[in-house]
Amino acid sequence: MTLLKMDELKKLHQKKYRRQFGCFLAEGEHLIQELQKATYANPALLASELYLTEKNQDWPSVLAKHVVSDRLMKQLSDTTSPQGIVACVPMAAVLGAGSCVSTDAAAGERGVYLHEIQDPGNLGTILRTLAWFGGFRCLLSPGSVDPFNNKVVRASMGAIFHVALETDVPAAALTQRYRAIACLDMEGESLQSAAFHQAECLAFGSEAGGLPASLLQQPGSKTFSIPGSGSIDSLNLASTVNMSVYELRREMAS
Amino acid sequence: MTLLKMDELKKLHQKKYRRQFGCFLAEGEHLIQELQKATYANPALLASELYLTEKNQDWPSVLAKHVVSDRLMKQLSDTTSPQGIVACVPMAAVLGAGSCVSTDAAAGERGVYLHEIQDPGNLGTILRTLAWFGGFRCLLSPGSVDPFNNKVVRASMGAIFHVALETDVPAAALTQRYRAIACLDMEGESLQSAAFHQAECLAFGSEAGGLPASLLQQPGSKTFSIPGSGSIDSLNLASTVNMSVYELRREMAS
Repeated sequence: MTLLKMDELKKLHQKKYRRQFGCFLAEGEHLIQELQKATYANPALLASELYLTEKNQDWPSVLAKHVVSDRLMKQLSDTTSPQGIVACVPMAAVLGAGSCVSTDAAAGERGVYLHEIQDPGNLGTILRTLAWFGGFRCLLSPGSVDPFNNKVVRASMGAIFHVALETDVPAAALTQRYRAIACLDMEGESLQSAAFHQAECLAFGSEAGGLPASLLQQPGSKTFSIPGSGSIDSLNLASTVNMSVYELRREMAS
Repeated sequence: MTLLKMDELKKLHQKKYRRQFGCFLAEGEHLIQELQKATYANPALLASELYLTEKNQDWPSVLAKHVVSDRLMKQLSDTTSPQGIVACVPMAAVLGAGSCVSTDAAAGERGVYLHEIQDPGNLGTILRTLAWFGGFRCLLSPGSVDPFNNKVVRASMGAIFHVALETDVPAAALTQRYRAIACLDMEGESLQSAAFHQAECLAFGSEAGGLPASLLQQPGSKTFSIPGSGSIDSLNLASTVNMSVYELRREMAS
């Protein structure tokens, strides 16, 4: 890809410029390795002078090469000790169709819909789980945290490059795409029921707000919950997603 | 309980003083509500002048009452906007035997051993899951994050008051307490095997270091893993714990 100008790169810390330029940053060797494993897009790779001097490493061959000053690298990094190497990744490589993602909607892929998820760490954790199992598409509602935010990308440990992802998906669109939607909520049927295993899409609300009533009341929707001891009144959102996705995969494998 | 002196309370942000005074802080109404539901210990409750003026709320009746200046409350809080109410909780109320926790080791309680867990958010999330299901005892190895650290207490959303907890448990002590230990690792038997369901203790290493070889090689230990697609090489630690604990509860209920 054509590299953005230096002053444009710095703006990628802000969501509106990521949208405008269609790119986001992924910092550090681990993320770049994951990117190389996953993508057929052509991200631009930037390394600082210091990185090249100290490490004297071979450049990953598939990526474009750009040397930047240590000062600029500091500005591109969102950590106090920059790793010295950053990729500028086209969002199109990650988002929906035409992406690096090899899962196939026709072959039993399931949707995981997250309604107004806010915590970047939770989203990163969820992406890791979806990438771990494979065969899931992550759908984010409007008002969710931006998945191309540095914190999400870092928390995903590169899993974001391995999961089919869509943003700004309204709850109303789900019923057009999926016949059976499993809504995870406080009071519902057990995850171990046949109806849960048949769901084409799993939907999760935020810990504070839950799922919108309009979705819960759709004819194709059914409510499920994870039975607990009753001593506390909520699970972490990522935990609920993890256990639901695990249950679905477990049942499909058995 | 006798209230610590004001200058001692401020020191409870540091682990060594928490150990010295045997207390930790829990800030905000939600945590205090959970504390009241859970404990038969007698924590001291501190509220700022501003809190009392603005909210004019009834004091939770079971707790001791102390009014502190807004300035001191700011120092006790670890957030930029203090909630105005803090409990000083005796660790003995949470730790091991003689605690507020009603689970019974004799009645099929299982151990969850975390080896050198570092991330406070992960530990908080794990405590929520263990409290959700009930019947688990959380054992932390030496070198783990302090569970009485503000960040863990907050991330636990009060679950820390509902889980039997032990700190500084060496891996070597596990084999004396448990006959069958399930070690979660990269390559092992499936979670859905009978051997996993029979484990009395589940053991988890840190994402970076894994479990010590000495534990993996014990006669009572067996290695298990969560089958994945292979596109990424690790799950988040809390995710692994969540799915393992879910699998055990699922199988026990079925």
